[in-house]
Amino acid sequence: MSVSPFDHPLLSALTGDEEVAACFSVEADLAEMLAFERALAEAEAEEGLVPAEAAAAIASAAAQFSPDMEALRAGVRQDGVVVPALVRQLRHAVGPRHGEFVHFGATSQDVIDTSLALRLGRVSTILSRRLERLIAALDALNARDGEIETMAHTRMQAAIPVPASRKIRSWRDPLHRDRQRLARVEEEIGVLTFGGAAGTLEKLGDAAGPVTHRLAQALGLHALPRPRHSERDGVTAFASWLSLTTGSLGKMGQDIALAAQSEVGEVKLASGGGSSAMPHKVNPVGAETLIALARFNATLVSGMHQSLVHENERSGAAWTLEWMVLPQMAVAAGAAMLTAERLLDGLSFNARGARA
Amino acid sequence: MSVSPFDHPLLSALTGDEEVAACFSVEADLAEMLAFERALAEAEAEEGLVPAEAAAAIASAAAQFSPDMEALRAGVRQDGVVVPALVRQLRHAVGPRHGEFVHFGATSQDVIDTSLALRLGRVSTILSRRLERLIAALDALNARDGEIETMAHTRMQAAIPVPASRKIRSWRDPLHRDRQRLARVEEEIGVLTFGGAAGTLEKLGDAAGPVTHRLAQALGLHALPRPRHSERDGVTAFASWLSLTTGSLGKMGQDIALAAQSEVGEVKLASGGGSSAMPHKVNPVGAETLIALARFNATLVSGMHQSLVHENERSGAAWTLEWMVLPQMAVAAGAAMLTAERLLDGLSFNARGARA
Amino acid sequence: MSVSPFDHPLLSALTGDEEVAACFSVEADLAEMLAFERALAEAEAEEGLVPAEAAAAIASAAAQFSPDMEALRAGVRQDGVVVPALVRQLRHAVGPRHGEFVHFGATSQDVIDTSLALRLGRVSTILSRRLERLIAALDALNARDGEIETMAHTRMQAAIPVPASRKIRSWRDPLHRDRQRLARVEEEIGVLTFGGAAGTLEKLGDAAGPVTHRLAQALGLHALPRPRHSERDGVTAFASWLSLTTGSLGKMGQDIALAAQSEVGEVKLASGGGSSAMPHKVNPVGAETLIALARFNATLVSGMHQSLVHENERSGAAWTLEWMVLPQMAVAAGAAMLTAERLLDGLSFNARGARA
Amino acid sequence: MSVSPFDHPLLSALTGDEEVAACFSVEADLAEMLAFERALAEAEAEEGLVPAEAAAAIASAAAQFSPDMEALRAGVRQDGVVVPALVRQLRHAVGPRHGEFVHFGATSQDVIDTSLALRLGRVSTILSRRLERLIAALDALNARDGEIETMAHTRMQAAIPVPASRKIRSWRDPLHRDRQRLARVEEEIGVLTFGGAAGTLEKLGDAAGPVTHRLAQALGLHALPRPRHSERDGVTAFASWLSLTTGSLGKMGQDIALAAQSEVGEVKLASGGGSSAMPHKVNPVGAETLIALARFNATLVSGMHQSLVHENERSGAAWTLEWMVLPQMAVAAGAAMLTAERLLDGLSFNARGARA
Repeated sequence: MSVSPFDHPLLSALTGDEEVAACFSVEADLAEMLAFERALAEAEAEEGLVPAEAAAAIASAAAQFSPDMEALRAGVRQDGVVVPALVRQLRHAVGPRHGEFVHFGATSQDVIDTSLALRLGRVSTILSRRLERLIAALDALNARDGEIETMAHTRMQAAIPVPASRKIRSWRDPLHRDRQRLARVEEEIGVLTFGGAAGTLEKLGDAAGPVTHRLAQALGLHALPRPRHSERDGVTAFASWLSLTTGSLGKMGQDIALAAQSEVGEVKLASGGGSSAMPHKVNPVGAETLIALARFNATLVSGMHQSLVHENERSGAAWTLEWMVLPQMAVAAGAAMLTAERLLDGLSFNARGARA
Repeated sequence: MSVSPFDHPLLSALTGDEEVAACFSVEADLAEMLAFERALAEAEAEEGLVPAEAAAAIASAAAQFSPDMEALRAGVRQDGVVVPALVRQLRHAVGPRHGEFVHFGATSQDVIDTSLALRLGRVSTILSRRLERLIAALDALNARDGEIETMAHTRMQAAIPVPASRKIRSWRDPLHRDRQRLARVEEEIGVLTFGGAAGTLEKLGDAAGPVTHRLAQALGLHALPRPRHSERDGVTAFASWLSLTTGSLGKMGQDIALAAQSEVGEVKLASGGGSSAMPHKVNPVGAETLIALARFNATLVSGMHQSLVHENERSGAAWTLEWMVLPQMAVAAGAAMLTAERLLDGLSFNARGARA
Repeated sequence: MSVSPFDHPLLSALTGDEEVAACFSVEADLAEMLAFERALAEAEAEEGLVPAEAAAAIASAAAQFSPDMEALRAGVRQDGVVVPALVRQLRHAVGPRHGEFVHFGATSQDVIDTSLALRLGRVSTILSRRLERLIAALDALNARDGEIETMAHTRMQAAIPVPASRKIRSWRDPLHRDRQRLARVEEEIGVLTFGGAAGTLEKLGDAAGPVTHRLAQALGLHALPRPRHSERDGVTAFASWLSLTTGSLGKMGQDIALAAQSEVGEVKLASGGGSSAMPHKVNPVGAETLIALARFNATLVSGMHQSLVHENERSGAAWTLEWMVLPQMAVAAGAAMLTAERLLDGLSFNARGARA
Repeated sequence: MSVSPFDHPLLSALTGDEEVAACFSVEADLAEMLAFERALAEAEAEEGLVPAEAAAAIASAAAQFSPDMEALRAGVRQDGVVVPALVRQLRHAVGPRHGEFVHFGATSQDVIDTSLALRLGRVSTILSRRLERLIAALDALNARDGEIETMAHTRMQAAIPVPASRKIRSWRDPLHRDRQRLARVEEEIGVLTFGGAAGTLEKLGDAAGPVTHRLAQALGLHALPRPRHSERDGVTAFASWLSLTTGSLGKMGQDIALAAQSEVGEVKLASGGGSSAMPHKVNPVGAETLIALARFNATLVSGMHQSLVHENERSGAAWTLEWMVLPQMAVAAGAAMLTAERLLDGLSFNARGARA
């Protein structure tokens, strides 16, 4: 069963992105949650809060952990978060002697948000690489077709002739800026969340700082002076970036769909979509998909901004809303990049004489 | 892998709805598409456009059809819609003699939108029944607890005492109106889409009207004088209704979360969510989930309204956007109803004396 | 100073609507608020709650009332609503003997929401009339140009020839349905809000029902068994309708902008916009404006749906959000209708031979 | 007449911001447009494209220019932009001899977007200063009340006691990050737009680069290698920032509204809103307004992202949508900051013993 187009066996061919989606699989999430619990126990052992033997037992249990998915699912329904049930299972796997040391001083949000940070870091790496490839593809297109004369259109009317490079650059430059922006947004999302029940790490005493730094280092994240449990600006800034980039590609898609119109014929696509009723059609499916993905993320970005109104020390409502919105936005952005790559591969500008 | 919370093995326990989601499975979609092709061939046979033998062969092939999913997936990527590849497969299954009569005079959108109409009809029936149950549950709550004195709160401050029935009614009455609205919206979505390439059924000649009526009757849908390919007001009105209803439940969730605050204690929940850090917590997870679902649909409804700007006789961009948005909205609305049922089951108002 | 394009001395020529905007002027709002206070006093006098003499004094003062705008403004900042300051001023105008009877048993929201209902009724009448005119204009266009052959375009590619009537009908039929929908939505907004502090009219005792009915009758609104203070489905349904209709016109605008492209030339506009750089341009400004207005309302409709999560008996937050969103949506819908009328006036389809 | 709450004589007391709104007045816009035309003529004179005498005449006419607002308004309706009519009027003012040199080589969008850049620069300065004050106010609050014990609330339930500083920091730190982000976003908006009809400055020949640099320098903006007419990522990034910041303040508003509840009483407000029905109420109007403004901008940010799909070299539709959305977002952000300042002025945390 697949409600979302990203998980749908057929539609995901159009709007999906397996590589980014893999970062949001339950397996990926659980793996990072277990990595957190293991690294936490080890950091706490090094600071003397947890016996070294217990940390070793936790690490070993986490490495071999096989979750009871039905029980986790029941836990999510009951608690709104998977962590209490997961911790119970992990404690059971660790055994009675050391089990109590699992998750010491942490809270559900520490585990969930840190797992997210680790996976958004992977998403960011994937998307950055793709942007680089897209920029290169547009540079190559410009090198080959940039001097072909095309018609500029302003307000949906022919304006004056311009070289194709004018159009190509207006697709490329925003992607370049998006890549620069990503480097900055990455700093906002690559942070450890570790605060305990209400953000004060009250159970760790003086060891709070040292454990935080060890844990951050072990996981490859930035340590923060204070956890940002209820401060959602980082993930929202990342979501804004996802939509911005998808929108840049949507503009390119819109331009290509317009330039490929039967009556305009300024660009030729390597291959277009067929129609069940009209075999002669060559539909600019990829270009249209870019528009749909851009408008999708432009819609969803609003939900992330709504979730900034995150009440008190932790909001079940606003936080759950993020889970419903952010993964889809990442996959839509990723799918837009894949679609753009396929679309550009084989796209060429038509020299004037070559047009009908 | 599961990007959306509705398909996620764990999160769907919180935000999912198996019964509504089943209406959006690929199996359900393909089944209705095949039902369309079969009923079309039969209607065309009755009007003499297709040999009766061909219609029988198509019906038989459709009944036993086993899709090549990989090829369908490749078709979606190529064509943006599944129908050309599906029709190819079905023709192949029907065989060379009658295969050409499959899909005669129809276009992809006829198949896809009619399949959607059939499935939205099922969704509507499910949701209507649930609304009825919710109204009954609130009536029962009112009958039992309605006279308990509670505090009205305006602008987040205690105002004056009111009976609990004041609150219960403000949750119930919108659901009653939503149910009445649904009866009207159902008429908008329960329509046959049948127009051929550009909405004129040009291949059917004088048989266009009779075939349309036979087809509509066979499928249990309303026949229209003209297909609404590019007129998306019906599905958008339905989406608006989905969000309206989810919002009504979100208001109830917000009220319950506020009334269940430790310091207020006006309502008691049968069971609440636990915390990994604070075993004493009884979190109003269901109430928070209602808020999250309401804000999710309030976000997505914008995407459906954006897709009203559906260019020309068929927009790949705007139509694809609908696919990305509408199923999720239906499941979110359904999940809100399930969550509300669970939440009300066991909710009670506290008599004043009983409060801390 | 004008932040919004609807109040802007220049931009309102493009996106404004003086007739609808007049319904949202402070003068119109205050006039209806005073009408409420007057009708309330008279209804309460007839039920013996207020001396007849006091009701007469209130009616007289309301008729001659000249507000101290600075004090009202200060009141809004202090109280979040204008009513406490307005009632103070009105009581002062009525004088010490009868002043205390002003606003008896009512609350701010009763006054504000009833004033809104009265003004939305006017808006609805204006828009319904315009829809009627637009439908007539499209019928006339169809009668004149409907048989001209045009090219259907699906997925941004030429498909097959269709008569212009195919396009015209796809613009007209949704407006016809929108008009039918409006008749139903009108019932949802044309209701009296009267509930007192927390919706129970606790100060009126047994007279609550009779006063409600008299008040509703005097104001030409429906009386309700219970006030809907915190139930925002009615105004949200109206907002959804506004966006639906604006979207229907946006689709027409998009089609016209595409058909008027230099390379397509299927429609001719009576007059187009000029360019400061290219005197030869004839820009389809009206068509583009329709798209912008549609996307604007498709954006804002989300805000109205968010405001359904209206906490407790009255939410300052959600209610204020409505004030920020709904008037703009009404004016945008109205402006779209005016723009569409101007655009259709002088639009003609080009016969094939007449094209370049 | 005032449709928007920002221009409304009464509501603007709640949701308005005179200082930011002044940047979007028609006077401010025209003044910057004239500054552009003057600086353009002077830069072109220095590069020998325009006679020095003509540049002087243009500068003089611009300095004394008094627009015919009715004619400008008619121009906007006709052309969709004010510039053609404004240039006509300015040419007339300059006189027949030099008038033709007005606006040489430029297009409407150059004038409009550059005027916007200049005014957004002012907005940015205003908002940055206010953020600084807000951070200082929160630091002062922390210094005074930070050690008061308060109750942390997670998922709407009391969790564990934390010092008030935990809450105050969660309001302050996002504002600090917002301020850092603004410094980067400023670079994106503080750019000259100068490209002529289709972005190629084709009328300027080799002088294009030098004129661009002179013009940028004269106006205090960054010169770009290529104009970004159709690349809307800069303004959209700014809009995202506006919403992010408004959302950070909305979170603070939500927390304060919850902490000020009658039953919680953790914070005390200097003054609250009164009720027309319940004189005892002290409503947290400022806090609620912060929530409304946050949700408003979270709604509108979607419209800016939609406008990224800006077709071809200039989109009348997408660009007009920006005008309808961006100024309101800036004023809403500004109003949130003013509201927050007033709210914090006089807010204090209650020591435990002092609570009811």
